[in-house]
Order: sequence, then C-alpha cells, then structure tokens
Amino acid sequence: MSEERALAVVTCTAPVNIAVIKYWGKRDNDLILPINSSLSVTLHQDQLKTTTTAAASRDFTEDRLWLNGEEVDVGHPRLQACLREVRRLARKRRGSSTEDTAPLILSYKVHIATENNFPTAAGLASSAAGYACLVSALARLYGVEGELSEVARRGSGSACRSMLGGFVQWQRGERPDGRDSIAQQVAPETHWPELRVLVLVVSGEKKQVGSTAGMQTSVDTSPLLKHRAEVVVPERLALMVRHIRERDFEGFGQLTMQDSNQFHATCLDTFPPIFYLNDLSRHIIALAHRFNAHHGCTKVAYTFDAGPNAVIFMLADTVAEFVEVVRRSFPPATNGDQFVRGLPVSAASLPEELLAAVVAEPVPGAVQYILHTKPGPGPQFLDDPNLLGADGLPRRTA
Amino acid sequence: MSEERALAVVTCTAPVNIAVIKYWGKRDNDLILPINSSLSVTLHQDQLKTTTTAAASRDFTEDRLWLNGEEVDVGHPRLQACLREVRRLARKRRGSSTEDTAPLILSYKVHIATENNFPTAAGLASSAAGYACLVSALARLYGVEGELSEVARRGSGSACRSMLGGFVQWQRGERPDGRDSIAQQVAPETHWPELRVLVLVVSGEKKQVGSTAGMQTSVDTSPLLKHRAEVVVPERLALMVRHIRERDFEGFGQLTMQDSNQFHATCLDTFPPIFYLNDLSRHIIALAHRFNAHHGCTKVAYTFDAGPNAVIFMLADTVAEFVEVVRRSFPPATNGDQFVRGLPVSAASLPEELLAAVVAEPVPGAVQYILHTKPGPGPQFLDDPNLLGADGLPRRTA
Repeated sequence: MSEERALAVVTCTAPVNIAVIKYWGKRDNDLILPINSSLSVTLHQDQLKTTTTAAASRDFTEDRLWLNGEEVDVGHPRLQACLREVRRLARKRRGSSTEDTAPLILSYKVHIATENNFPTAAGLASSAAGYACLVSALARLYGVEGELSEVARRGSGSACRSMLGGFVQWQRGERPDGRDSIAQQVAPETHWPELRVLVLVVSGEKKQVGSTAGMQTSVDTSPLLKHRAEVVVPERLALMVRHIRERDFEGFGQLTMQDSNQFHATCLDTFPPIFYLNDLSRHIIALAHRFNAHHGCTKVAYTFDAGPNAVIFMLADTVAEFVEVVRRSFPPATNGDQFVRGLPVSAASLPEELLAAVVAEPVPGAVQYILHTKPGPGPQFLDDPNLLGADGLPRRTA
Repeated sequence: MSEERALAVVTCTAPVNIAVIKYWGKRDNDLILPINSSLSVTLHQDQLKTTTTAAASRDFTEDRLWLNGEEVDVGHPRLQACLREVRRLARKRRGSSTEDTAPLILSYKVHIATENNFPTAAGLASSAAGYACLVSALARLYGVEGELSEVARRGSGSACRSMLGGFVQWQRGERPDGRDSIAQQVAPETHWPELRVLVLVVSGEKKQVGSTAGMQTSVDTSPLLKHRAEVVVPERLALMVRHIRERDFEGFGQLTMQDSNQFHATCLDTFPPIFYLNDLSRHIIALAHRFNAHHGCTKVAYTFDAGPNAVIFMLADTVAEFVEVVRRSFPPATNGDQFVRGLPVSAASLPEELLAAVVAEPVPGAVQYILHTKPGPGPQFLDDPNLLGADGLPRRTA
C-alpha cells in the first residue's frame, strides 16, 4: 500500500444515457433540481463511454483536470460542486467510521484525466457520462459509498441517470435541499435483452443554444412547459414505467416519440424560440412514421435531445431492415465502410413494396454514420489501464 | 328590373386575414366550432383579394361554380352548407318581411365564378377569402342581411374573420348550435394607420398536411393543444385586444410571435407530429429576432400559418429598412424587379453595424417575393365588372 499512499489512483468508466421522458427545466439552478421527473435508458459502454482516472497525491500542488488530453480549468462551479460534495461525504464517512481509510488523502490535491470514446459535445450527452464518471472515480478514491447520483446531479442534471444501468428514473423530488432528487433503477439492462438502439450521427450544424441557457429561457417563457411539467409528465412517467416493466415496445415506442416531440414543442414555445430539430430531423421523423405505417405497428421509435442526432429504439429483429432503410434514405457520402459502427448488423434486402412506401427522395451524406448499441450497465471500475502516468500527468496528449 | 329578373347578378370582393391569436382545432367538425377564440388582422384587398360573381336565373339548370376559370364540383359539403344556410336565411327573411324581395329567385339555380388575385393554396388563406366572398355575394343576391359570419364559418372556420375589416375576433361561443360562434370587430382598419404587413412568399415545398386533417389530429393527440385552448388563449386574447386598442406594437408584436410559435408547438406535439415550419422559416424567425435585438425593441413580428410563407407585421417607418434586410438575406434569384410588390417601398441603405449584426449567410432565391400591404376593410360590393357574362358563364377561362 506504500505506492498507493504516494499516488492513489482510480479509473472508472461511465455510460451515456438517453431520456425517453425528457428533462427540460430546473426549479433550482444551483442545486440542479428539475421541474419534472425524467426517465432514461443507459446505453452500453462498449459503444459509448467516458473513461476517467482520478489520482490523489501529496506531491500534487493543485487540483488539475485534463479532458481528452487537454488541460481545462478546474474552476468551473459545477466541477467544484462535485469535488466539494465528494470530499464532504468522505469527511462525513471518516467521522462516522472506525476504519482508518487513508486519513491524509482528503488533504491531497487531485489530478483527473478524462476521455470520451466519441466526439465531445456532439449532442451525445457527453456531460452526463463525464460527470457520472468523475463522481464515481472521486468517490472510490475517497472511499465514499452509497447514494452518489445526488452528487453527479450537481455536475449535470442528467448525469445522475448515468450512475445506474438499464432503465433509470430521475425523481424530481420535493425537498428544497435536493436530497430526494436522485436516480433510481426501474429495471436493469438485462431486463429487455431484445432492445436495441441506433444513434444516427448527422452532419454539420452546431448546437445553437446550449441546454443550460435554453432550459432556463423555457422555464421563464413557455406556458406549455409549465403544463407539461406539472400535468403531462407525471402521467407519462407512470405509463412509461409500466411499458418498460411489461417490455411493451408498442407503448414504449409511441410514448418515447411523443415525449421527444413534446420536449421540442416546448422549445418552440420558448421565447425567443429554440429549434433543435432541423429539416433533416423532420426527414428522419417522417421516415420512422412511414416505416411504422408500412408495418402497421410501432417498429422504430425516435427521440431527439438538444442536438441534431437521432436516437432510434427498436427490437433486435428490426435492426437489419431499418439500417438498410436508413442507408437507402441517406446514402453514405464516402464508400460507406464505416457507415455502420458498434454492434454487428446483418445484411438485409428490402422488399420492393417497403422501398416504395418508405424510402422517399434520398438525401446523400446527411447521416454521417449509424452507431448500433443497446442498453448497458452503470459505471465500471478498471484496475488498468489508467489515463494518468506514474508522474500524475496524462499518458496521452491531444 | 326586368333584366335583373332574367339574370340577377352580384359581384363582391373579400379579403384575406392573418391570425395573430391562432385558430387550431374544432370542437364540432360539422358546424366548424373552434376549441378557442382567435383574433386576426384583415389584409387590404388592393393586394390580396378574392372576387366572386354570383348569378341566379330561371334559365340555369343546376348550381355551378368556377374557381379561377375552371369549373369545380359544387357538391363539396362545406359549399353546400353555405348555399343551404344563405337560402334558409333568405326564406326566413321573406317569411318575416312584407316586401316582395324577388320571391322566385330562391327557386333559381346559381352560377358562381370566383377568382383570386394571388396563387390559390399558397398558404395565403385563400379559403377564408373565398368563403367570405361567396357568402357575401350569395347573401346580397338573396337579399339577406345581418350576421353572416356564422354562415361563412360553415365554409371555412377562419372565413368568418374575413367578413369584417381591421382587427377581428372570432368568438369561440358556448352554444352547441354555434349561433354565438361569430366574428366581431375589435377595431376598424383605420384604427392603426401606421401598421404594415409584409408577406414573404417563399419558394417550393407544398403543404404536407392540410389544416382540416391536421387540426383534427392535434385535437385528438396533443395534450398541449388542450391546455393552450383552455388556459393560454383566453388570457392571450384579452391581452391582444388591449395591445391593439392601445396601438402598442411592442406588446402586439411579442404576443403575435409567441402565439405563432405556440401554434406550431402544438403541431409538433401532435402525433404523428406536423411540421409547417422548415429551415427557411427558422432562418426568417432568427432574422426577425436579430433585427429586434439590434434595435433593442420589437420592430418586426412574424407569424406563420399552416404553410411556409411568413407574414411580418411592422410599423410604416420600419418597412424600407426591413425590406432591405430581407433582400440582403435572401437575394432574389432573378434580377429582382418584381421582388417587392404591393404598396410602394422606398429605398434604404443599411448601416454597417446593422448589416453585421443582422444579416448572416445569405440564402439566394429562398424568398420568391415580398408583398407589402396593410390592414384593410371587409367584403366590398362592385357594380361592375363581374366575372360572369350575360350567358351566365365565366368571361375568362383558365
């Protein structure tokens, strides 16, 4: 343990999650308390994950953070809130414990290196995975256990949902101090083994309004958001939990699409209005509805967050066919070798009548690639490799 | 009067109106009773109008209708409803009157010719002007006076608002028979002489979902529309009436934009979702907000109906500058001679700082032309010319 005393190191990975009942709007900006509960699916880390190494050492002179190899300012209030909270819990735990759990470590500075295996800020919820990973790593480093979603929430609201695998509900909570605004697992990732997720990563167009600023304006100006939070979401949440428990894709898919649309409707009801959907999103939405209409049931269900990428849920037996529909609708700009990534997808040929009914005017190059994934577990700890060298500096640089 | 007996002819013109508190959704599909009240500005007929000639003759063997020179089926239920209602009122009036008002005419068949001075179904509310014109012409032909907006409503809901000039409210009404679902003038067209209207007629893209089908789906599926109709609109309507009475452009403009956005939000909350706004609409919306932000107040206010054209309100002293901003943002595809139509627009040169702050990446050819108009009066009767010849057939053919 002597080496660990010199440089205590923890490496952790954490997942992205995608909300099917959307979070949009805070009732407390500082504590990051939402105006409504939300529900998400944690995506598998084999395809999308953040990896974070946190190290503490008596030799470090300041807290430092590297994101994808580049040092960033640790002064960000939300980052500081997470650091402060984990350290507070560690002190509290030490105070109530008889074990000697590295008593000195709390006075050490930390070095943190974090990397995504996907493009940052591509609308793939990197901050959720990032803060979940940071809090998990710090908590392990300081020997803190128990309810940590509350701490992750202080980094980024939706990060609390990345603290658990499978199907996760973020309870709005009632307390002004936010102690009951936490994540709870509705069902583990093993609950619905046939469920699959396609992320359609689209080209171009940077996010115009960040979600923090956007949701604040929505809370201030949208009468429809208020009604959604107070009346619509509580009903939908109960319904969604039931659909998930019953593995009812028809119900799950319909409600997922409806809730995505309603979230974007409240963005449009914001003043000045916020648009995250563009003409390509409309194409994808129309495509999904034509596909479902052709099959006479809900085979695919789209959801869009505060960015242009589409996330599409379906059961495993639909993947090959729908991937081919996407390939025909948005022919890859290049040779298409890397068009489908992630879990394997078998080849499918489309019946003529499906082609005629579903695929309209192809838009070449509009979809960069498709990522095929599925629900996955929460944060995982790794013994090795870690992102910091023995010197406490990142092994790789950008 | 002997000739009139042989061929009674009436020619009428009627205006287009643009709603600033939107109508979307019926509580009775047959009677066309709305789920909420709405409020519109009647546009001047010098720029946009429908002209209708209605003739009755003992020589006609059937009711016939020509739209822009082409004969169309008179069997349409809404057209029949209007014909039936005007004839019913005429019978009622004759029954209660001592005058001899062409007693035979009610048994005659009618020929109707109607023309728009703008493209039909271009999202310029042609059905509103059309039914207002039809009902006005038929009523005069049959000597019916009094409350006719109720009859026009049976043709097309928003047509009832085209029965009056200036600023017009369509009362939702409470009665199941619709007798109190009528149009009322909030203020005449002379009330706000500085108010101007630009219609940005955009290129391409046909309406995807007709408004009749669209609003029915919205009523059936959108929880936000229900809330809008029950809670939001009553508050907004009172506020809008006040802004108009006070000629408060800041208030009028803000609320006009907010209500347009909320209407489109409810379309997006419809399932499957309905999109009437496209990327060009988003461009125009963003342009208006940048223009207002640059001036530090609401100088222009957009509103969009169930189609891609933008209607933009402003005061007269803003027209020249904003037209130049539109010309710079959407440079005309051709030489631009016909780019600005309607009321004259003086030339304006834009200050550099306005250009830099407001005009971003021009999109050539996206706006076909700008129509400059203003609030105007309700239906007008003409002695001459009329659209039907002495033979009771259209003078012009398509």
